[in-house]
Amino acid sequence: MDAAGPLALRRRATFAAGISLPPLDERSAAAFGSPGGSTGPENRRGRAVETVQAKSRSEKKKDRNDLSDTLSCHKAQESLLSSTSGYNNYRGILNWCVVMLVLSNARLFLENLLKYGVLVDPIQVISLFLKDPYSWPAACLLIVSNVFILVALYTERQLSKGTFSERVGFLVHCINMAVMLTFPAAVVLLVPSTTPVGGVFVVGTYSVLFLKMYSYKDVNLWCRELSTIKAKKLARSLSCPSPQQFSGKVCYPGNLTIRDMYYFVLAPTLCYELNFPRSPKIRMSFLLRRLFEMLFFIQLLVCLTQQWMIPIIQSSMKPLEDMDLSRMTERLLRLAVPNHLLWLMFFYSFFHSSLNFTAELLRFGDRQFYKDWWNSETVTYFWQNWNIPVHKWCLRHFYKPLLRKGFSKMVSQSAVFFLSAFFHEYLVSVPLRMFRLWSFLGMMAQIPLAWFVGRFLRGNYGNAAVWMSIIIGQPFAILMYVHDYYVRNYRHDAD
Amino acid sequence: MDAAGPLALRRRATFAAGISLPPLDERSAAAFGSPGGSTGPENRRGRAVETVQAKSRSEKKKDRNDLSDTLSCHKAQESLLSSTSGYNNYRGILNWCVVMLVLSNARLFLENLLKYGVLVDPIQVISLFLKDPYSWPAACLLIVSNVFILVALYTERQLSKGTFSERVGFLVHCINMAVMLTFPAAVVLLVPSTTPVGGVFVVGTYSVLFLKMYSYKDVNLWCRELSTIKAKKLARSLSCPSPQQFSGKVCYPGNLTIRDMYYFVLAPTLCYELNFPRSPKIRMSFLLRRLFEMLFFIQLLVCLTQQWMIPIIQSSMKPLEDMDLSRMTERLLRLAVPNHLLWLMFFYSFFHSSLNFTAELLRFGDRQFYKDWWNSETVTYFWQNWNIPVHKWCLRHFYKPLLRKGFSKMVSQSAVFFLSAFFHEYLVSVPLRMFRLWSFLGMMAQIPLAWFVGRFLRGNYGNAAVWMSIIIGQPFAILMYVHDYYVRNYRHDAD
Repeated sequence: MDAAGPLALRRRATFAAGISLPPLDERSAAAFGSPGGSTGPENRRGRAVETVQAKSRSEKKKDRNDLSDTLSCHKAQESLLSSTSGYNNYRGILNWCVVMLVLSNARLFLENLLKYGVLVDPIQVISLFLKDPYSWPAACLLIVSNVFILVALYTERQLSKGTFSERVGFLVHCINMAVMLTFPAAVVLLVPSTTPVGGVFVVGTYSVLFLKMYSYKDVNLWCRELSTIKAKKLARSLSCPSPQQFSGKVCYPGNLTIRDMYYFVLAPTLCYELNFPRSPKIRMSFLLRRLFEMLFFIQLLVCLTQQWMIPIIQSSMKPLEDMDLSRMTERLLRLAVPNHLLWLMFFYSFFHSSLNFTAELLRFGDRQFYKDWWNSETVTYFWQNWNIPVHKWCLRHFYKPLLRKGFSKMVSQSAVFFLSAFFHEYLVSVPLRMFRLWSFLGMMAQIPLAWFVGRFLRGNYGNAAVWMSIIIGQPFAILMYVHDYYVRNYRHDAD
Repeated sequence: MDAAGPLALRRRATFAAGISLPPLDERSAAAFGSPGGSTGPENRRGRAVETVQAKSRSEKKKDRNDLSDTLSCHKAQESLLSSTSGYNNYRGILNWCVVMLVLSNARLFLENLLKYGVLVDPIQVISLFLKDPYSWPAACLLIVSNVFILVALYTERQLSKGTFSERVGFLVHCINMAVMLTFPAAVVLLVPSTTPVGGVFVVGTYSVLFLKMYSYKDVNLWCRELSTIKAKKLARSLSCPSPQQFSGKVCYPGNLTIRDMYYFVLAPTLCYELNFPRSPKIRMSFLLRRLFEMLFFIQLLVCLTQQWMIPIIQSSMKPLEDMDLSRMTERLLRLAVPNHLLWLMFFYSFFHSSLNFTAELLRFGDRQFYKDWWNSETVTYFWQNWNIPVHKWCLRHFYKPLLRKGFSKMVSQSAVFFLSAFFHEYLVSVPLRMFRLWSFLGMMAQIPLAWFVGRFLRGNYGNAAVWMSIIIGQPFAILMYVHDYYVRNYRHDAD
């Protein structure tokens, strides 16, 4: 209304000259205006109408003159939806989309409740973590992880003192990190009391630790390289500048403490730095809000999974076994909506609530855990912006070193996708004890997809294509795994 | 990306001062930039990276210096979704909504096909119009309608000549128009071979004719009143100004021809005018596009009704009979989406395609058949803008005359809603041969709804409320009628 107002007024002014019967005087023109143009805001600015009312009682003759305006009530003009009208205010369409989405999902929710009843069961959640109450493999593995942290710290200390040569240190680090990836995987695969959820938790934690230790090793190496140069050149003035200038800052060998190491391990980043930016104080209200969000979304995630996802997945088993293509597509699309909503909630609760909560507790200053991936018009932009900690790590410790070694951008980028695909597969296959490569292939498929979207789609079309790949791609991979998992674990039972 | 670019650049500039280890020289600073800030556009503006590549082969020492920048890769900053970040670019959300809607409906479409198979049947459409191939009541009634048109024209001619006095003319018009509403209704109610669809068609056509004849009578009356005043005052200079100034324009008694009358009857407007604005020529491409749209949308409407609406309505019968409230709500929401899409298609095909097609054929200039109701923030604004021909008629021949007679705005507005409610009920009840008042009550319920939305909701909330009332209100009324229709016509068969 407000946006269209000036346009309508301008149009009215333009067409006023074309009215066939000119108004007799100015007052009558004001009283009737142009009937076509002023219809909308009539009940708001009732000025013109009130004038008519006041007059209708006093002077009968004037009204007759007004009729001459009423006689012509059409103007030559185009429909708003005609391309020639130049009209383009479709603000209401966004509200329409939101209302339609809310209504459609309210319907789905009600249908689901009527069909399945209430399936939410908080006790069931415990069983996801615990199979055998006397065996806690996941918890034990988390305690053991400290060993690897301390080995990394010890190695760096020896390196800084010169007790280990660079070659020996590199070797120890390599062995340490290789064991960090293989040991938990072996435990999860071999100890039967590990549940898939516990397995994901352990394998995820170890992967994060692996990336952190890799960064720790790299940064300390760079510090040693720098101080060697500086020692030759500027007498260490840059590796650790004059104390009065950078008071409170830690310099290279001074950072190799347990306190510094555990701060890095707990901090919401994968890239080590000697002096992290710190926030001035812990804001209690911020902390509590993030905590509330975390708890709320985790509850909601569990409820929606039990009530919405699992029935769909279970009802997909039959079509999947029979390879009934049209029914499979229907289940896939049916799964896509709840899966996508769960992913969005997971994104918010993890990347916004949890990481900000941790950062606030540790007074960690850099809160850029994600960027505006929701506006991404290319697949590459999405992968570069939805998970900033991992992206930053890839860039600093993998992509740029590759470029410095002389590899081309194309090769380096593909290598990053390959690494990412490896970790995706690792995080899924090990806990499920199935090596099916769906996750790996899903990540590798991003390379041709990125090329296609970047080449052929622009602006909103590119953005829609990225959303489409997120919404459809994930449930596709999930259905693949679930199919294989069910077929392996449950069909044998049924036979 | 483009929108975020300048912001990111500005931020980078702001934070550049805070980097703990200052770059050794300008070139190395340019080479590495700030790793956190420049991650997004890396693969597009590969300038910085290419510099590194070039250098990596030539000077090893420089790289070491670059490392000092790499060492600090964090900056104190807030997450984008934190309220303190000041970020508000959620352009991608609209695309998300569209993608989600398309996917949800693709799923529904597939589910429907799997459940019911193909229900589209073009032959069935004919049976909607024709019950008994030897009795065509709807077509006969359409031919008879010419009688009423000619009676109105004859009456006006007699009035212009003075053969009829104003009182006699008014009486004849009243009788003519009363018969126009009652005669087709009586035929539809009494002739058993009239189908509901044929009935809607006839009753709708007669209603439109009624409104047109009412306008015709009013305008000619105003012309006579005007010419009486002018004759006294300006010697007819205004009723028909000097010929050289308004060449080609018709003046009062000259308009009472069969040609002029039928042009008005066929023209896409309800308000009579002596000299309609005319478009300069018939644009063939415009005409064909509108024709194609009409045919396409009518096809689509029929297909969707057969495939989507009817199964839902049929499956709603059982819950409706049992008055099972939660299942009724589920069916209502399930019906709301296809019904709303059909209404949108009907709106476009009728108000844009058909009326523009007719207007183009008749070179009728005023194409304002609707305004931007999709942006309406109040219920009143919606009713004033979605159907401009009817709104214009109500304003010119009902609302303004009431105001001129001294009624208050509130009373006049309610009277318009009452008239509209009457016609809505008339158009539904007569063809269905059921007088249930659901449609009437639905229209009258708009008055408290308009008050509520106008009083409590503003901006986007008001807009969402209007959408909600459109999307939910219609299927609610439809279910009411369908329930009664089925219960009356089919339960007896089943018993």
